[in-house]
Amino acid sequence: MKIDFNNMLEKTIGGHGITETEINTISQRITKVHEQMNAKKGQMAWRALPYNQDEIVKDIVAQGKRINKEFDNFVVFGIGGSALGSKALFTGIKHLKYNELPKEKRGGARFYVVDNVDPDGINALFDIIDVKKTCFHIITKSGNTVETMSQFMIALSMLKDALGDNFKDNIILTTDKEKGILKKISNQYGFKTYTVPDGVGGRFSVLCPVGLLSAAVLNIDIDALFAGAKAMDEACTKESVWENPAYMYAMLMCIAMSNQVNISVMMPYADGLLNMAEWYAQLWAESLGKRVNNDGKDVYCGQTPVRALGVTDQHSQIQLYTEGPFDKVVTFIDVEQFNTTLTVPKTPIDMLDATYIEGQTINKLIASEMRATEYAVTQAGKMNMRITIDKMGAKAIGELFFFFEMATAAAGEFLSIDAFDQPGVEAGKIATFALMGREGYEKKAKELNKADEKDQDFVFQV
Amino acid sequence: MKIDFNNMLEKTIGGHGITETEINTISQRITKVHEQMNAKKGQMAWRALPYNQDEIVKDIVAQGKRINKEFDNFVVFGIGGSALGSKALFTGIKHLKYNELPKEKRGGARFYVVDNVDPDGINALFDIIDVKKTCFHIITKSGNTVETMSQFMIALSMLKDALGDNFKDNIILTTDKEKGILKKISNQYGFKTYTVPDGVGGRFSVLCPVGLLSAAVLNIDIDALFAGAKAMDEACTKESVWENPAYMYAMLMCIAMSNQVNISVMMPYADGLLNMAEWYAQLWAESLGKRVNNDGKDVYCGQTPVRALGVTDQHSQIQLYTEGPFDKVVTFIDVEQFNTTLTVPKTPIDMLDATYIEGQTINKLIASEMRATEYAVTQAGKMNMRITIDKMGAKAIGELFFFFEMATAAAGEFLSIDAFDQPGVEAGKIATFALMGREGYEKKAKELNKADEKDQDFVFQV
Repeated sequence: MKIDFNNMLEKTIGGHGITETEINTISQRITKVHEQMNAKKGQMAWRALPYNQDEIVKDIVAQGKRINKEFDNFVVFGIGGSALGSKALFTGIKHLKYNELPKEKRGGARFYVVDNVDPDGINALFDIIDVKKTCFHIITKSGNTVETMSQFMIALSMLKDALGDNFKDNIILTTDKEKGILKKISNQYGFKTYTVPDGVGGRFSVLCPVGLLSAAVLNIDIDALFAGAKAMDEACTKESVWENPAYMYAMLMCIAMSNQVNISVMMPYADGLLNMAEWYAQLWAESLGKRVNNDGKDVYCGQTPVRALGVTDQHSQIQLYTEGPFDKVVTFIDVEQFNTTLTVPKTPIDMLDATYIEGQTINKLIASEMRATEYAVTQAGKMNMRITIDKMGAKAIGELFFFFEMATAAAGEFLSIDAFDQPGVEAGKIATFALMGREGYEKKAKELNKADEKDQDFVFQV
Repeated sequence: MKIDFNNMLEKTIGGHGITETEINTISQRITKVHEQMNAKKGQMAWRALPYNQDEIVKDIVAQGKRINKEFDNFVVFGIGGSALGSKALFTGIKHLKYNELPKEKRGGARFYVVDNVDPDGINALFDIIDVKKTCFHIITKSGNTVETMSQFMIALSMLKDALGDNFKDNIILTTDKEKGILKKISNQYGFKTYTVPDGVGGRFSVLCPVGLLSAAVLNIDIDALFAGAKAMDEACTKESVWENPAYMYAMLMCIAMSNQVNISVMMPYADGLLNMAEWYAQLWAESLGKRVNNDGKDVYCGQTPVRALGVTDQHSQIQLYTEGPFDKVVTFIDVEQFNTTLTVPKTPIDMLDATYIEGQTINKLIASEMRATEYAVTQAGKMNMRITIDKMGAKAIGELFFFFEMATAAAGEFLSIDAFDQPGVEAGKIATFALMGREGYEKKAKELNKADEKDQDFVFQV
């Protein structure tokens, strides 16, 4: 993997780029950042995941084999960090029409991630799967996530109807080692259960059983995935920002943020990596979007991630990126080698001015468009950087996961905030309990109903 | 449809909301905005589309029937405005696992939109379709779009191999009435061809043949789609901002933009509307992202659209939206009635503290979460608004399309910019031609290669 930060700099893009002075100023804080990164290793247990899971991976791979033998479908019930890693693995590594391939070409169960509580969405899934032939992986670290628990309850009841009391083989749970409803249920009823290790937050959990069971069911090479993560770990442990790309990414982004560059566009040039951009969007948003800093001061920190897709979004967003405000960094992800090649052949009709495309590959076209767009954005004086992946596959996916995790943790230190909590989601959870009539939330329910009084001048009915 | 703007206001959300003074100041410009909206009707021929297409719709519906009778698959080749409308129609109205349903339940061909030039993505599609049984709809308004032309050339050649000279029935073209390569090819070879009317820009083209052929193939009720658009047209033609929700939306967003609120999050609470948010993202970004205003002055205008999905992104983005900077407006789209209902049943095991969910519907859960999140964002003092759809379906989709089109056009007038051009995409297109070796672009190719000289201190190899 190669990461090129040149187009972040004033000397390349002009007045809205980062200056040498800015880099010199902030880089004085590197030693402190590095100390904290080492001191907080307990909170960053995800850093050990590529190294300390030999036993569990053996078990997971065996489970994956059992699932693919016994079932036609594998369904993940989870949301946020319990879903996005699996989705990134699925499209990042597997055939892009996997579920529509015949079984012999897939070599495994069809794969679905259900990360919403849309009634039409969930009903649609149940319209196309036979629950008897489906294994459900229920993932909630807290063990209490209302969306996931609801899905679990629906599946349980359908399985009971279809299989009588023999439904346990169709269910696997992943949750905390002791806390939460799901763990209690696991203890009481003896479902096959995996654990989210301590110090592995939801958004950093893809390389533990949360994501690994999906990988196993998908016959993904977990060794290669870990090899990518390890290579990146090695590259991102040095103190010097000149030898540590995660620190460089974090440092330049934090300088940008201090200059009101409040948007981070993640724009891979590969269909399969769009879910990687989604995964990054949670990691970056939830880790750095914080009201208070470590001193308890109000800072209203955070950079809004935007996931974009090359070349598709050139025809949607690039007008804004080139001509609009100087408020964003665009991170291009370039792929040197796709899994396949596709050549535009000689056509049976005269293509007139388009004939120059004949004989060229789609691979060259997408690569050229990436460079062309990077050039246009750079010429427009907008900050951007380029991450180049040698080859689509498990190793590259492992590298990307680990790179962004390290960069996010380091950015938390540069910003002096806690990158590992999410206090801002509590208010919404409590309000949901109130509206769903959960016991003990009656007062909040009243408050919510009061909030519904509106100035009708600002309400339009069509 | 109901639109509630209350949570944009200082009196509701506090110091970061819009004040009465701000509204009074900008509303003095409404008369001018309204005059321009009327004067530019020629550039806004899309406003007539729900009214003036009786003949063409008849032809399109007949084509749809032919396609569903003769083919197993319908594939749209297009990008940007030639793709996003079809995608919004598809998921906004049809079953959410449409392609995986058996044919008798679908009642039509499988439906695919190819809007990228990823070799793995295109190859994956060809792995699962039989080109002989596939109808391809090639859409490019300019007739020259390199991505779409490349896809067309690949399909042409495959069809020739499979069918000999009988490939014409498998191809339908949609392009400008006289300009471009595709039109010339149409004239020369006699493919079935539809026209993008003058004054209908790509991103405003969903209600012309660009989107309508998809609608017909999907058996979507085009009358209902138009009925929604017409209802919204009627609601958005009055001069007074107090009687015109599109003007109100445009006005409040432009006040927000002038206060450095540079992000517009579109967050429907329905899986099927995520593609509507994508469609909006192009409309809003490409129309308002402009370097110069109508006086030729540099303004670097534009608000960055972010598409989010409720409830999914509550577990990804809401931490940032509540605790992060005051730099965004969140537009919630709420659905009163989904196509289906889903009840969480009595489970065969004891669900402990989660038992309160038993007997409640998923419909109530997603609605409660929308309100809960809106409440949390409002309590945090962040601007938001709520669009409520009565019922998922073609009418609502027509309403949304037309509402956002009118709002975008009006915002262009408030900002005094041209909402209908896209000068910023040219540089990238030219650079692509150069890199693909097209004749006449040799000088640009040299320039691009020169731009590749990098300061190696900022390049990392892992």
